[in-house]
Amino acid sequence: MRMYDIIKKKRDGGELTTEEIKFFIEGVTDGSIPDYQITALLMAIYYRGMNVRETCDLTFAVRDSGERLDFSAIDGIRVDKHSTGGVGDKTSLVVAPIVASFGVKVAKMSGRGLGHTGGTVDKLEAIDGFRTTLSEEEFIAQVNKIGLSIVGQSRQFAPADKKLYALRDVTATVDSMPLIAASIMGKKLAADDDCIVLDVKTGSGSFMKTAEKSKELARLMVDIGKNAGKKMVALITNMDRPLGNAIGNSLEVIEAVETLKGRGPADLTEVCLTLAAYMLSLAGKGTPEECRKLAEQSVADGSALEKLIQTVKAQGGNAALIEDTENFAKAKYSHAVKSVKRGYIVRADTEAYGLASLTLGAGRNTAEDPIDYSAGILLRKKTGDLVSEGEEIATLFSNDPASFAAAEEKLLAATVIEAEKPADEPLVYDVIE
Amino acid sequence: MRMYDIIKKKRDGGELTTEEIKFFIEGVTDGSIPDYQITALLMAIYYRGMNVRETCDLTFAVRDSGERLDFSAIDGIRVDKHSTGGVGDKTSLVVAPIVASFGVKVAKMSGRGLGHTGGTVDKLEAIDGFRTTLSEEEFIAQVNKIGLSIVGQSRQFAPADKKLYALRDVTATVDSMPLIAASIMGKKLAADDDCIVLDVKTGSGSFMKTAEKSKELARLMVDIGKNAGKKMVALITNMDRPLGNAIGNSLEVIEAVETLKGRGPADLTEVCLTLAAYMLSLAGKGTPEECRKLAEQSVADGSALEKLIQTVKAQGGNAALIEDTENFAKAKYSHAVKSVKRGYIVRADTEAYGLASLTLGAGRNTAEDPIDYSAGILLRKKTGDLVSEGEEIATLFSNDPASFAAAEEKLLAATVIEAEKPADEPLVYDVIE
Repeated sequence: MRMYDIIKKKRDGGELTTEEIKFFIEGVTDGSIPDYQITALLMAIYYRGMNVRETCDLTFAVRDSGERLDFSAIDGIRVDKHSTGGVGDKTSLVVAPIVASFGVKVAKMSGRGLGHTGGTVDKLEAIDGFRTTLSEEEFIAQVNKIGLSIVGQSRQFAPADKKLYALRDVTATVDSMPLIAASIMGKKLAADDDCIVLDVKTGSGSFMKTAEKSKELARLMVDIGKNAGKKMVALITNMDRPLGNAIGNSLEVIEAVETLKGRGPADLTEVCLTLAAYMLSLAGKGTPEECRKLAEQSVADGSALEKLIQTVKAQGGNAALIEDTENFAKAKYSHAVKSVKRGYIVRADTEAYGLASLTLGAGRNTAEDPIDYSAGILLRKKTGDLVSEGEEIATLFSNDPASFAAAEEKLLAATVIEAEKPADEPLVYDVIE
Repeated sequence: MRMYDIIKKKRDGGELTTEEIKFFIEGVTDGSIPDYQITALLMAIYYRGMNVRETCDLTFAVRDSGERLDFSAIDGIRVDKHSTGGVGDKTSLVVAPIVASFGVKVAKMSGRGLGHTGGTVDKLEAIDGFRTTLSEEEFIAQVNKIGLSIVGQSRQFAPADKKLYALRDVTATVDSMPLIAASIMGKKLAADDDCIVLDVKTGSGSFMKTAEKSKELARLMVDIGKNAGKKMVALITNMDRPLGNAIGNSLEVIEAVETLKGRGPADLTEVCLTLAAYMLSLAGKGTPEECRKLAEQSVADGSALEKLIQTVKAQGGNAALIEDTENFAKAKYSHAVKSVKRGYIVRADTEAYGLASLTLGAGRNTAEDPIDYSAGILLRKKTGDLVSEGEEIATLFSNDPASFAAAEEKLLAATVIEAEKPADEPLVYDVIE
């Protein structure tokens, strides 16, 4: 088999065989195919696409390019949630405890934030003492004991994806549906879950800017997961505005805890309950409607919060922070961002909000950057809200007060205020089963 | 300027600016742009194409990537002919002496053969003692003195093209009109001619398989040349059958000499006189029709043959070989290929004929392979001819008789014999001015 022939076949719109796709990904992984042939094929795939069969083969080859986890030592049904990434997305901290409180197992490997999106692992590390690196034995033992563990990805899953992504990133071939789906699902399927709920974000704060594109991606990923023998659902959720009001690590943990106490922002609460409902339903706890009631109940009776506290304790974190979030260290400085005119916030560039938070110290530009856990933004007004001239629309927090000017400028530029109230947008656009 | 943005722009069908194309080719030449970005852009160009302005800019950037010749020390009008390459194409050996016999200057840099196509430099080296490497001073002095010199390309012209071609060759991006045109013309324009006649071959023995594609390429190359200030004409000529009857180095020199003596095959004679007519016409010697008569006259009165003899002597070759071609060393072995049935040759895969000649030792698979100058094929029958069963259709020559079986098999497989006489095909399809 020759890479040249594979490139030429796809260039001319042909369908690659399973063997050709395996040959390609094995060559990417072991370095036997030179980068210049890889990127030529990626560009051909960008133009010609791949059908579902090819995309599944690509995904499975990516998954098989490195280690795979074996969760067979975990008793019970294992369910996971995967978000395509957004701003202020702290849903994992809320839905994992809700689901685990019903005995469903959540063995969660999460990522770190980069650029405008935050990462669950960074948020957990805002909790003093919380260990995001556990041995496989510790991880499995904890899931068996309390039903939930969340750790960082210490292992090298799907190394072919890492290589491919690095090349796509510099050759304008990121924006290809089959390549995106194979990248996300190739890594996700290296874990060993029975059920996966995908949270596909759409809008200005996500990398899929339209609901149509998000649905197409969701459909493809659900089909790939089902082909791999998983129970799958995808929700298309709104990321045209930040989820909840908090952006930044400890601020988001506090908001997640508030949500588990039944006092969270309405949008965050709604998305979390919906996600938890589908996770419980896939795990066999009833219809999504029945499971929605279960989720509400676990918040109301405190069992979900209790599950989070157990998890924090099990992983060495200071549970006193969760029991009373007033105990979190606060940023030394804060700054009120005020509206320069009266009107309705008609839209906001959510990605820019994420970048403003990064400017304050809450995120990282490169994987090595340190994080200021207390830094971030609390939104006082969001899209649809009426603001007066001079009214506070957000509070900035940072240990570096010199960062306020740039963050404020970003935030104000990203917030469009007009006379007419905008139409309401749904929080959940669609459910793809 | 970032290569990423250039790739993305072309990916989306945008028109690259002159500066972007310069940046690209300079980065290819100095190695600052990695191969994986180069091939991603090449594939995007494959799909999106380039307009004439972009293709001109690409060509000029390729031309400027290395040394350029300065022929200002040559007195008079300098005219060159460039063929896109074919099988049995010995036209340079005929037309250059014809044109030079009228005082028009032909300072010709030629290539070597590779694969199924032969090269003029190899053919000249079949003449004992002929020096294809001259210093620039010797070269220019000879052109000033006798009007003609033909040498190999000793210098590194258009190094960006060499790099690009090597990458295109392994990424299925050779077959792109703007890339082909920029490759051919980028090298051609590094020389310093006033007029260029392009011989764009079309058919099974060329790399443009249809007349339509050949015309498109010719139009583009003529426009590029004109944009560079050259007088340009392109002829679209038939390469669906070998040109003349001889394939192989000394066999082709002998056939060229016969043609200069007015005894050449009709097809070769016709194409050579047409090419020479357009070269003379561009050089200001009259209309193409008038120049055609001049060309015929220089063959009839022996002045063209005399010009070739002068050239061979000036470059150290044994002119006795030209004066009497019986003096050429002959291959030790020959083998008659006979038709297995009666009928008309309706078509022949000319590329396969070239490969059969290569099998006999007349060509090279890699740039380092040695050549058997006496090896090759003399065709006794060509497309359109009637053959009887057992009649000789070709004679093979080689110093390695073990090569006959494979060459014969190739030749017979490439020659289609049917009952119906095929329609005549033109030798010159079109003239693009």
